[in-house]
Amino acid sequence: MALQAAGRQSLVDTVVDELRAQLTAGEWPVGGRIPTEHALAEQLKVGRNTVREAVRVLAHAGMLRSRQGEGTFVVATADPGDLMRGVQRADVRDVLELRIALEAEGARLAAQRHSPADIARMRAALAAQTAFSDREGQPADGQYELYAEHDIEFHVAVVDAAHNAALSATYGWFSSSVRDALVASLHDRQMPRMHHSDHHDLVDAIESGIPEIAERAARELLAKPKQAVEALLSAE
Amino acid sequence: MALQAAGRQSLVDTVVDELRAQLTAGEWPVGGRIPTEHALAEQLKVGRNTVREAVRVLAHAGMLRSRQGEGTFVVATADPGDLMRGVQRADVRDVLELRIALEAEGARLAAQRHSPADIARMRAALAAQTAFSDREGQPADGQYELYAEHDIEFHVAVVDAAHNAALSATYGWFSSSVRDALVASLHDRQMPRMHHSDHHDLVDAIESGIPEIAERAARELLAKPKQAVEALLSAE
Repeated sequence: MALQAAGRQSLVDTVVDELRAQLTAGEWPVGGRIPTEHALAEQLKVGRNTVREAVRVLAHAGMLRSRQGEGTFVVATADPGDLMRGVQRADVRDVLELRIALEAEGARLAAQRHSPADIARMRAALAAQTAFSDREGQPADGQYELYAEHDIEFHVAVVDAAHNAALSATYGWFSSSVRDALVASLHDRQMPRMHHSDHHDLVDAIESGIPEIAERAARELLAKPKQAVEALLSAE
Repeated sequence: MALQAAGRQSLVDTVVDELRAQLTAGEWPVGGRIPTEHALAEQLKVGRNTVREAVRVLAHAGMLRSRQGEGTFVVATADPGDLMRGVQRADVRDVLELRIALEAEGARLAAQRHSPADIARMRAALAAQTAFSDREGQPADGQYELYAEHDIEFHVAVVDAAHNAALSATYGWFSSSVRDALVASLHDRQMPRMHHSDHHDLVDAIESGIPEIAERAARELLAKPKQAVEALLSAE
């Protein structure tokens, strides 16, 4: 099969798409070796440099890994770039619900596994946040971004207290989307006011050591923004 | 700053790492334009082709987007490749708990939002699975992979019934990791036996329309593998 594309840049993109399609279709199993650069160049009727560039793209995506002198191996058949694009296309309600899924489970597990250092980290984030709050605990004028940074640090600390590498990696990646949404919501007067005490309630609930109590506190903390988002969506 | 690396291939990798570091540090905000190819080539003391290749890698990763004649813009400051690598490094207990987080919330939302077609899809996956089961509902010899395929289709159908694009994108990406773990566990005699009835219980719970009941059924379905994994880990 000969691939065709307008220029050299888009030819690499076309080869990336072709290899990605074969990977996601399970053509080459995880742990297996893909054909050589030479064989792929012949098969796709493109130059070896084009194949090499496309392989590099998929290696950075975490789907392939090249080992010097041994060849290129399949690490994963799913493309994390697809995940990123999927979440970017989702609306704010969807993103908030994904956040609730991760934080509710994080709080549940944190109740059982937290260390004193985890609790100290949560309380430190809340204490630092007060420097950027007004007397009512709301973000002070012009301090939205720093207020939001500490809010994210607090929520990341909650999830990290679950001591689960997969959950922390997912939430850590996700928290940059959260940051953008949070800063936008802090500028939006229609969003509900925050209550600092809710955050302290969550720390207390995690300290209680009871998973169900911690999960409920995490859900309550996010229930207000969720209701506000739903009200906005249904008003449209 | 002049970047140095052994060969051309690794020089592109070095430029990717450099640009990614600047992106994750928030050097360029989401929605903003990064410096031109020419400016980056000067700054990093590399050729424009090297910069172009590095930008392509980050575009495929979902962090940058190039618009013809307008320049290259920041789409996200987090690298989904990092997420992939983080989850790949996590152990089986961690991955299972992440799965529980996504499925429990998926079932909860599915209770409120499922359509008749969603329920039909879940039941069809379970019915199809029986073709690859023995009389006791366990995977028949040599049918592990097809049994697992239908199991994954069932769980994806549950999460899709939440009608949440962000949750479906995350679970869809994640389900390829689940597939590999599932096939491995089906070959592992130490893993608990599956009970088909648990799966039907989850469909009934979602049909009930009550979020808490659906969530509990999703947790119960995954409780046995979780206990088995914890027993294996504590026996080590």
